[in-house]
Amino acid sequence: MRPQTERYVRDHLADALALVKRLCAQPSVSAQNYGVQECASLVGEVLTEAGFQARLLPTADPRYPVVYAELSGESPHTLLLYNHYDVQPPDPLELWESPPFQPVEREGRLYGRGVYDDKGEIGARLAAVRALLETRGRLPCTVKFLIEGAEEIGSPGLEAFVKEHRELLRADACIWEGGGVNWEGQPQITLGVKGMAYVELECRAAATDSHSSYAPVVPNAAWRLAWALSTLKGPDERVRIRGFYDDVVPPTEAELEAIRAMPAEEALYKESLGVRRFLLDAQGFEFRRRVLLEPTCNICGIQSGYTGEGTKTVLPAVARAKLDFRLVPEQRPEDIVAKLRVHLEEHGFQDVEVMALEGEAPARTPMDSPWVALVTNAARTVYGKEPVIIPTMPGTGPMHPFVKVLGLPVASSGIGYPDNRIHAPNENIRHDYFLLGVLHAVEIMERLGQG
Amino acid sequence: MRPQTERYVRDHLADALALVKRLCAQPSVSAQNYGVQECASLVGEVLTEAGFQARLLPTADPRYPVVYAELSGESPHTLLLYNHYDVQPPDPLELWESPPFQPVEREGRLYGRGVYDDKGEIGARLAAVRALLETRGRLPCTVKFLIEGAEEIGSPGLEAFVKEHRELLRADACIWEGGGVNWEGQPQITLGVKGMAYVELECRAAATDSHSSYAPVVPNAAWRLAWALSTLKGPDERVRIRGFYDDVVPPTEAELEAIRAMPAEEALYKESLGVRRFLLDAQGFEFRRRVLLEPTCNICGIQSGYTGEGTKTVLPAVARAKLDFRLVPEQRPEDIVAKLRVHLEEHGFQDVEVMALEGEAPARTPMDSPWVALVTNAARTVYGKEPVIIPTMPGTGPMHPFVKVLGLPVASSGIGYPDNRIHAPNENIRHDYFLLGVLHAVEIMERLGQG
Repeated sequence: MRPQTERYVRDHLADALALVKRLCAQPSVSAQNYGVQECASLVGEVLTEAGFQARLLPTADPRYPVVYAELSGESPHTLLLYNHYDVQPPDPLELWESPPFQPVEREGRLYGRGVYDDKGEIGARLAAVRALLETRGRLPCTVKFLIEGAEEIGSPGLEAFVKEHRELLRADACIWEGGGVNWEGQPQITLGVKGMAYVELECRAAATDSHSSYAPVVPNAAWRLAWALSTLKGPDERVRIRGFYDDVVPPTEAELEAIRAMPAEEALYKESLGVRRFLLDAQGFEFRRRVLLEPTCNICGIQSGYTGEGTKTVLPAVARAKLDFRLVPEQRPEDIVAKLRVHLEEHGFQDVEVMALEGEAPARTPMDSPWVALVTNAARTVYGKEPVIIPTMPGTGPMHPFVKVLGLPVASSGIGYPDNRIHAPNENIRHDYFLLGVLHAVEIMERLGQG
Repeated sequence: MRPQTERYVRDHLADALALVKRLCAQPSVSAQNYGVQECASLVGEVLTEAGFQARLLPTADPRYPVVYAELSGESPHTLLLYNHYDVQPPDPLELWESPPFQPVEREGRLYGRGVYDDKGEIGARLAAVRALLETRGRLPCTVKFLIEGAEEIGSPGLEAFVKEHRELLRADACIWEGGGVNWEGQPQITLGVKGMAYVELECRAAATDSHSSYAPVVPNAAWRLAWALSTLKGPDERVRIRGFYDDVVPPTEAELEAIRAMPAEEALYKESLGVRRFLLDAQGFEFRRRVLLEPTCNICGIQSGYTGEGTKTVLPAVARAKLDFRLVPEQRPEDIVAKLRVHLEEHGFQDVEVMALEGEAPARTPMDSPWVALVTNAARTVYGKEPVIIPTMPGTGPMHPFVKVLGLPVASSGIGYPDNRIHAPNENIRHDYFLLGVLHAVEIMERLGQG
């Protein structure tokens, strides 16, 4: 990195944080459609001020436009940045130490909804762009921003949007939503996400609830659902839906090696989640391997009959469960839902209906991609610590359109740290890690510009 | 029956109904402790007016006194009448065509909460007493009333009360809570009840809910509970708790014969409950045998995690289910709960806690008891139709103290008919069946007096 660029970043850190505050002062809660349009306009304004050609592009749902912006650079190489300007609802409000949409700094931290996820990342990347423009005149590579407004509600229109704008979004590589350091301060580079199939199961066994004295003859929806669920997975944690694992691509040696090299975190999780024993007594490498690489079948909720105080002798006619399946490459949500339907049919549960509520495909960039090396080397230089490469997150996000539709190598890194309180009250970022995140973005752009 | 007694009953039907109205105008909702004490006093007053020695006796819970009354008769024989003065809550109020606690007559019916269950039965039995006293001077047998105030909340203190007052309650036979005719107008004589063990299962798998991306390693309470439930009973409807059926006494030939002779009702049930197929395709005799004689394991309710609109990717820490087991002689609720605990332990569900919420033992009077013959013959005379003997109800009620503690033969009969709307809005009785119920009570007392 050119010394004057680094100096510019350090000298203008307050400006960069001011921009983050400006973005965070504008609410943009996609789940409640609160301030979303206004925030899209603000983001467009901010990008234009920074020198970009910015515009708002509609998605299938016009309430959630994408902000697209582009600024060409010296080299023929192009970097695509994926971010989102929408935020999680701020509830529960009473647990915030300062109002969520009035960002404030306290003791080296900036607090407010969105300061990390994902407006802080937008601000950091814009700070990198500004430093490069101010100290070099032009960017070392072309930079394209795709900033969507519906990430927190599952990015419903994103895949279609990316397909539609394939040409516009053409690039050499992608830096995704965000990231940060671990508890040891090592930068983390994340290369993948799990997918998701979210379904609701509904069993209707009769037209109305009955008195429970009919139990010897009247079908009970709660029993039907309990039995149906128990066929899906057993205490061995293997999903029993025929073909569920068929499309799972075995991890590469490099991915397993990366997981082996990751720090042990299960003690921390055990304490924070209040868990006595993890499933199958997983620990060490196996703990991390399971978290990152195992597809899941999880009951999010189940409801039937009388659940109030005391007793009611009722025989429920309806029972419902919500399930999420976290998927790994190359499982596909619609295929898993189809296999679930076949499974229920084959096991005699024709009375259990499956409603598909959400689907997102998994995605992963190979460890041996040159892009991974570039982002990792840039991090090593900037942070002065050995980066941790995480082959995939345990969570889900809209990475698939970039990997599969655009065919890009994707890595995710950013300004975060473990106590960010993402999605929670008192979401915050630390100035020092924000600075490092900006410098990392500068370094990445410089290196991509060098080809 | 003496003609003048029958005439008195017919001539004073309006008085008898007026007494029922007086009782029903006084709310007495035990579940809400609304008017219960006032109603106990009123019942004591009414019994005293009728010539009884009446008094209010405390139970373990002083909010629900028993009204005890006694009037000696000509013969050395004693009849114990069991009734209750408390009623079900009147909700949903908007479905009543007239206010539930302002009883009114319309087209040969009396409407109001409690007009059948169980104040109408009290009124009918008192009308029989009055007719006998007015036309004979004395009762043909001694009559004792035990009228409790907590039947609709499971009669918590009754068994202890009966044990404590064993001497006071000494009798030769018992007419229980109530009864009535079937759709064909045949009087029904019921000889038993199922018992009940009502439990709540609670699984705690972690200290707090987690994000569902932890599903590969963090125990999920909803899964644990679904698996635990699925070990209790399978789609073959056999309860799989070891020893569950050990104490079940096989039905006698006479009981099976009585069930065989009962009218077919499954078509009616199929329509009113909106059920396409009954469990195990039971029909005819087998349908009735299952309803009346099979003990059950029923899920009343189940709740865990997120059950609102849309999706939430949560991994629930807690899951709960409410279950009722309907028991048959000689199963005992506390024994069934103990066996359930052992079952869960043995199947590895140490994390599923069992809370016993309610217990009531089953009871049955043998078909060949002379008391059954007396009550049946009395009914045949009064109704002019062949009585239907029902060896046991599919439901539960406090019959056990009378059968097992007092050692009495118990039969249940009364003023009802199938469209009584018991526990529902527009509860009602028909004048004609009320009259027959009074006459049946007269006939029973006369026959018992003759020894």
